[in-house]
Amino acid sequence: MGLDRRVHRSREAVLGATFELLTESGLGGVSVDEVSRRSGVAKTTIYRHWDTRSDLILDACARISADQEAPDTGSFEGDATALLTGIARLLRTANWSSVVPSIVDAAERDPEVAAIHGRIQRGHTAPLREIIGRAVRNGELPPDTDASAMTAALVGPLFYRRWFSREPIGEDFVRSTVRTVIGGR
Amino acid sequence: MGLDRRVHRSREAVLGATFELLTESGLGGVSVDEVSRRSGVAKTTIYRHWDTRSDLILDACARISADQEAPDTGSFEGDATALLTGIARLLRTANWSSVVPSIVDAAERDPEVAAIHGRIQRGHTAPLREIIGRAVRNGELPPDTDASAMTAALVGPLFYRRWFSREPIGEDFVRSTVRTVIGGR
Repeated sequence: MGLDRRVHRSREAVLGATFELLTESGLGGVSVDEVSRRSGVAKTTIYRHWDTRSDLILDACARISADQEAPDTGSFEGDATALLTGIARLLRTANWSSVVPSIVDAAERDPEVAAIHGRIQRGHTAPLREIIGRAVRNGELPPDTDASAMTAALVGPLFYRRWFSREPIGEDFVRSTVRTVIGGR
Repeated sequence: MGLDRRVHRSREAVLGATFELLTESGLGGVSVDEVSRRSGVAKTTIYRHWDTRSDLILDACARISADQEAPDTGSFEGDATALLTGIARLLRTANWSSVVPSIVDAAERDPEVAAIHGRIQRGHTAPLREIIGRAVRNGELPPDTDASAMTAALVGPLFYRRWFSREPIGEDFVRSTVRTVIGGR
């Protein structure tokens, strides 16, 4: 096994342990000491890959959003439904979605966490901005479409149900949210 | 000063201290001991009014939502805009809106907090459900309107901007959110 492969393996172990800690006890539960203990990777090695604890947490969080890609179904409604269905699935996954409130809470009091959260948020919504941009370019959406307001109108209702009203986020709800936004713009 | 007035004064002092602690350090920072110390009201007296710490917290939170009343401007668009403008103002008020994430976070792990949060949430959205019901009754909205989905579509984008994307929640955004939901149903 070459050096690259070994480096890759220890990075994965560290990111895995970080995410595990995040899901178990929220942001407050992640210390580099504990990540080192769990992953079996020395602290000096961890700090060689990530300058700060925040960089490590950001990287661990980024893994989850990484698999969301901008779909291309041929219509904006199809693309938006596909993306929102993926987000709804993510929200139903207990692990990830129960970490988010601890990040949001910490961000209220800690500007560094707020910056991390902002970057995660922009990563999560990047595919959404991509399909909106494409629909504007091909004339499916009007040129004056406010991409940021449309993103809030699409994602907001799902987030509201997951963390605020705690109602189910089923297929029907996803479809009606997309139709509301398309019909109402 | 009569007994009633004194009881009222100590209740107010307790609720004020509870809310102050909530805004300073989130849900975790509220203990009946600390509330007693700050308000100058004995613990035994506090427990005479509220059976549990949760009841006390719920009551302290309920005060904030209490001032939101269902408006009657003559149109659903006017009513919804008035209500959402009030919610937007509440969200810009640092104190209250920075408490919410700590409640949401605790609710992920504690069913009792989840129950409190649910009651607060229902209290907050009661005026919204009222104006939707009225608009359905007077024919402004179709009889098959899904009040719960419409509530999510109206409130979700505002909550998303406050706690997730951290974008401003101005008059224009409120108006465009209402118009999207009305045009798109």
